[in-house]
Amino acid sequence: MTDTPNVAAPKPTIRDVASAAGVSKSLVSLVLQGSANVSESRRRAVLEAMEQLGYRPNRLAQRLSGPRSGTVGVMLNDIRNPWFVELLEGLTASLHAAGVSPVLADSYTDNRVGRSSVETLLEQRIDGLVVVGTTLESAAIEDASRNIPVVLAGTREPELPGVDIVVNDDDAGARQATEHLLHLGHRRIAHLQGPGIVGRLRRESFERSMLDAGLEPVVVSGGVSEESAYAAATRLLSRPGRPTAIFAYNDIACIGALSAADDQGLAVPGDLSLVGYDNTYLAKIRHLSLTSVDNGNLAVGVEAGKFILERLTTPDLPARLHQVPSRLQVRGSSGDAPREG
Amino acid sequence: MTDTPNVAAPKPTIRDVASAAGVSKSLVSLVLQGSANVSESRRRAVLEAMEQLGYRPNRLAQRLSGPRSGTVGVMLNDIRNPWFVELLEGLTASLHAAGVSPVLADSYTDNRVGRSSVETLLEQRIDGLVVVGTTLESAAIEDASRNIPVVLAGTREPELPGVDIVVNDDDAGARQATEHLLHLGHRRIAHLQGPGIVGRLRRESFERSMLDAGLEPVVVSGGVSEESAYAAATRLLSRPGRPTAIFAYNDIACIGALSAADDQGLAVPGDLSLVGYDNTYLAKIRHLSLTSVDNGNLAVGVEAGKFILERLTTPDLPARLHQVPSRLQVRGSSGDAPREG
Repeated sequence: MTDTPNVAAPKPTIRDVASAAGVSKSLVSLVLQGSANVSESRRRAVLEAMEQLGYRPNRLAQRLSGPRSGTVGVMLNDIRNPWFVELLEGLTASLHAAGVSPVLADSYTDNRVGRSSVETLLEQRIDGLVVVGTTLESAAIEDASRNIPVVLAGTREPELPGVDIVVNDDDAGARQATEHLLHLGHRRIAHLQGPGIVGRLRRESFERSMLDAGLEPVVVSGGVSEESAYAAATRLLSRPGRPTAIFAYNDIACIGALSAADDQGLAVPGDLSLVGYDNTYLAKIRHLSLTSVDNGNLAVGVEAGKFILERLTTPDLPARLHQVPSRLQVRGSSGDAPREG
Repeated sequence: MTDTPNVAAPKPTIRDVASAAGVSKSLVSLVLQGSANVSESRRRAVLEAMEQLGYRPNRLAQRLSGPRSGTVGVMLNDIRNPWFVELLEGLTASLHAAGVSPVLADSYTDNRVGRSSVETLLEQRIDGLVVVGTTLESAAIEDASRNIPVVLAGTREPELPGVDIVVNDDDAGARQATEHLLHLGHRRIAHLQGPGIVGRLRRESFERSMLDAGLEPVVVSGGVSEESAYAAATRLLSRPGRPTAIFAYNDIACIGALSAADDQGLAVPGDLSLVGYDNTYLAKIRHLSLTSVDNGNLAVGVEAGKFILERLTTPDLPARLHQVPSRLQVRGSSGDAPREG
């Protein structure tokens, strides 16, 4: 369980080369890239420094000489929803430790201008692709997976042969959220369902927990935005026998439900308890303070990085499913069920 | 003011090639990249289709044959703060229209694992760099600017020869925010100052507007996070003669001030009015509903894209400063000053 320090002499870095040649690190990078914008004298100084120091430009030499680029494409589903922040951190750390660079693209932004993020990334000669979150580009991902290793992180689709899936335990997470509300005495609990396989798993787990407690699960579609969740929650809360608690499929939807409660004059958590999912920084904003299921995103990112690195050296591994534990984070948006009047 | 349609026969696209060769678009990309993972028969089919259609793989051919890669690096300062979302949309649209692909990196994530985003991007053989927001990598940006075109978007630093700056009009924006509060009758107004040149410009504009109204400007540093702004606002609001309004340097800081008001039992806007900056989706969340200065980020992104494209063909242009208009968006967090008790 202890780290074994590497006791070999440290390898010379690009920084050492720059220092020995009396140039900047980016100039060394440009020389390695064969840029035409470097003067001959500076290029020679860099190459001489490399030789003296015994510097081996692994990645960059590889990408110039062979099909390997030393980069992994990271396709984000939507930069507007911050659920992926810690996942990206873990993933970047994993890749960086192996000397591999992540190249990012945002599917939402690319799709808005009629582009595919998968194409954007393939043009970068990526060696592998990590898909972060559920996107509309399933067909393109399937195409790509026939030619380069692909790992899905924080999403369970598209399910494809030879494509790994690294996610949190959605079943356990939704159960923790529901049981938390049951323990607080709530009996009329509704779920705002999210899209895709993840949405289905969270909904099914909610339904099982409710039925196990002898209660009727109420489920409505929450859509994919704060606006749609707001509209769905407003309808729910306008009904006779409205729920005293809502479990939303993610924090963005939970914020929509919070706004709906405001508009109906319902106090949170006095009249209505709310639980989200993802434990984003939004949930942590004091003025929102959402109870939320932490989806272990840092660990999901770290593991997804390990999986794609394995696939780069061993492309023919069978598809694997890795689930990291989820954990409920209780904050101010959930409390005891109101007494029946 | 009307678009002139391009009446020439449309150029064959990668999609046409894929269709003619009976393969996927990503396979065509892989052939263009010289990937080793394509069978000889499929490679031949693609190359034949290209010849028949007269397809010219501009970008990709260029990047394989010369120093140009057809990509522009986009360095985001911090993916946790969503201020840049529309800027990235505008930028992507500009670049896409010219057949140039954006490659993203996030400075916050890279710095967390001890990497430089500038280096990450330079390794992608980018033709140019757009720096989005203020980062800690000024020295690396300066290095890069000696070798490739650089444009700053939504930040005014580092100021460098030959580097364009595209921003909103911070002076006008801060004046609009301050005058809005003055018109509502506020006299004790404080400013939470942000970092860097942008922070200074907004603060100076606030001070001028206050002095012009014959009032004393109160300024405290808001730090760079919700937490630090919360702490600063808490100190401000605990003072005797506390302000009745706070103008925060951005929406994240404004949310910190909102939480501080909550904790002090102050109603917003009844006891305290709040104005943020950036008009992010956070400001639009109903439960937060922040009055905020819209920084014209979509236009900033579009213009930054045009500037970097110009520099790719004409690298020796002098440094330019382009400011897009700002515009106050009034929401629920600001209202009439409370009557003096």
